[in-house]
Amino acid sequence: MPRIAAFRTVGTDRYGVVQDGGIVDLTPEFGARFATLQQVVEAGALEEVIAAAEGRAPDYRADEVEFLIPMAAPEKLICIGVNFPDRNAEYKDGQAAPPYPSMFIRFPRSFTGHGQPLIRPPESSQLDYEGEVAIVIGKAGRRIAKEDAYDHIAALTLCNEGTIRDWVRHAKFNVTQGKNWDRSGAMGPWLVPFREAAQLDDIELTTRVNGEIRQKDRTGRMIFDFRYIVNYVSTFTTLAPGDVIVCGTPTGAGARFDPPIWLQPGDVIEVEAEGIGLLRNSVADEPTC
Amino acid sequence: MPRIAAFRTVGTDRYGVVQDGGIVDLTPEFGARFATLQQVVEAGALEEVIAAAEGRAPDYRADEVEFLIPMAAPEKLICIGVNFPDRNAEYKDGQAAPPYPSMFIRFPRSFTGHGQPLIRPPESSQLDYEGEVAIVIGKAGRRIAKEDAYDHIAALTLCNEGTIRDWVRHAKFNVTQGKNWDRSGAMGPWLVPFREAAQLDDIELTTRVNGEIRQKDRTGRMIFDFRYIVNYVSTFTTLAPGDVIVCGTPTGAGARFDPPIWLQPGDVIEVEAEGIGLLRNSVADEPTC
Repeated sequence: MPRIAAFRTVGTDRYGVVQDGGIVDLTPEFGARFATLQQVVEAGALEEVIAAAEGRAPDYRADEVEFLIPMAAPEKLICIGVNFPDRNAEYKDGQAAPPYPSMFIRFPRSFTGHGQPLIRPPESSQLDYEGEVAIVIGKAGRRIAKEDAYDHIAALTLCNEGTIRDWVRHAKFNVTQGKNWDRSGAMGPWLVPFREAAQLDDIELTTRVNGEIRQKDRTGRMIFDFRYIVNYVSTFTTLAPGDVIVCGTPTGAGARFDPPIWLQPGDVIEVEAEGIGLLRNSVADEPTC
Repeated sequence: MPRIAAFRTVGTDRYGVVQDGGIVDLTPEFGARFATLQQVVEAGALEEVIAAAEGRAPDYRADEVEFLIPMAAPEKLICIGVNFPDRNAEYKDGQAAPPYPSMFIRFPRSFTGHGQPLIRPPESSQLDYEGEVAIVIGKAGRRIAKEDAYDHIAALTLCNEGTIRDWVRHAKFNVTQGKNWDRSGAMGPWLVPFREAAQLDDIELTTRVNGEIRQKDRTGRMIFDFRYIVNYVSTFTTLAPGDVIVCGTPTGAGARFDPPIWLQPGDVIEVEAEGIGLLRNSVADEPTC
């Protein structure tokens, strides 16, 4: 399956198709029509752009570029919480599993690209990981039927839905602030076009920290599956091309260990899903000015 | 204080200064530089655009135009919950008042402009109002000190933070879905430039339904004041020009009556704040296709 990434080189932001030997830069050909990969998706031009890379030799080696967040300015970036078996029990609050998915919003600036460090701020030592599959909407819709849901998905990517745990429950309601520290999470490394149901229905999702498996499950076991999520979210809001929905993490985040195991500077976190790719990030303390 | 609005007439979207006799259209002069009022604020050009209307005669009567949401594409649209005295007690959950503000995110498409109806969807009869003051960020910043907070605010507006109550608690965590039904709330009618502390420090905020006062309080009584909010939010995320923060509603939403009083088609809701303006919206059932 082709892979298309947003990247930076010599100070300019570009996008192109990632091959084994490097990256075919598509900005010279398409940049005037679509300034960003976000705009490619919004225009419904993902397959057109991918096709143009066919047979071309790479322009850059992967190690020459800095990977950027593939979707940097979605109208909506929605995250689904508590969506794998045993995740509800992890909260130990005696509540029954919820009848509907919990959801919250992240700002794109809470994510960094593949290969960049997650930033641990001076205000907290509780940086945690959450490996997730994200879907990218390609076709607008409201009250989308479950059986039509896959027609509205243009692409897939991965998220490390990095979280500052002690800020998740700062307030009476909502996890907003614990989920939105600048560059506390990651998205990428690229988009994979979504062409067939088997790319989502039951793929393995794994998160490793310094090589040790911490989270491992299959999307076939999700409490609310991808079709349901598209249907449910589009009940209340019109989904627009370029919207991103991050679909939930398996058990095994650092907060669930006793005692909890927080990420430390120098740790390496890998989020991997079959057919999508491997998102790798280290951890660094925020530089002091 | 001048007022600057985004509006639509004869199918085109414009912005201009609202005078007593009508609206001075500033799109012919500034549209090439700033396509939208959102872009005017992001470019730091609000005062420049306002000054250009000085001494000009209006181009349109107010009743000839459709008011649009003044800030239609902010990078962030953050709402503060439970921020007036007695609001925590309204929840009757026995919890102490929270030490930090609760916050959630709305998508711009959950708002409609001044004069347009709030939309009650067929999925719920529990449409409710919440009158609020919103601040618009003019200058970027992270970890903004409270004493500098007002330097980062460019403008003020009003929100009716319309809510579908039975969807607020659909899930285990977060109010996201109850707060994001398409056109369930309103923003406007315009921006007022923020020039002095007295415009925010202790102004009266009132919400009326069909002429009856339902909410009435003063911003001087807010649990978390505007300076604190700017400081707190910018602790975890970089505030950017054009960001909107909706700062909380007084007691007296329809959900707090026993039995609750939900909005009905034909109701008229007015949110008014001293020195900012009056945001008026009716209610309509969502048209069936």
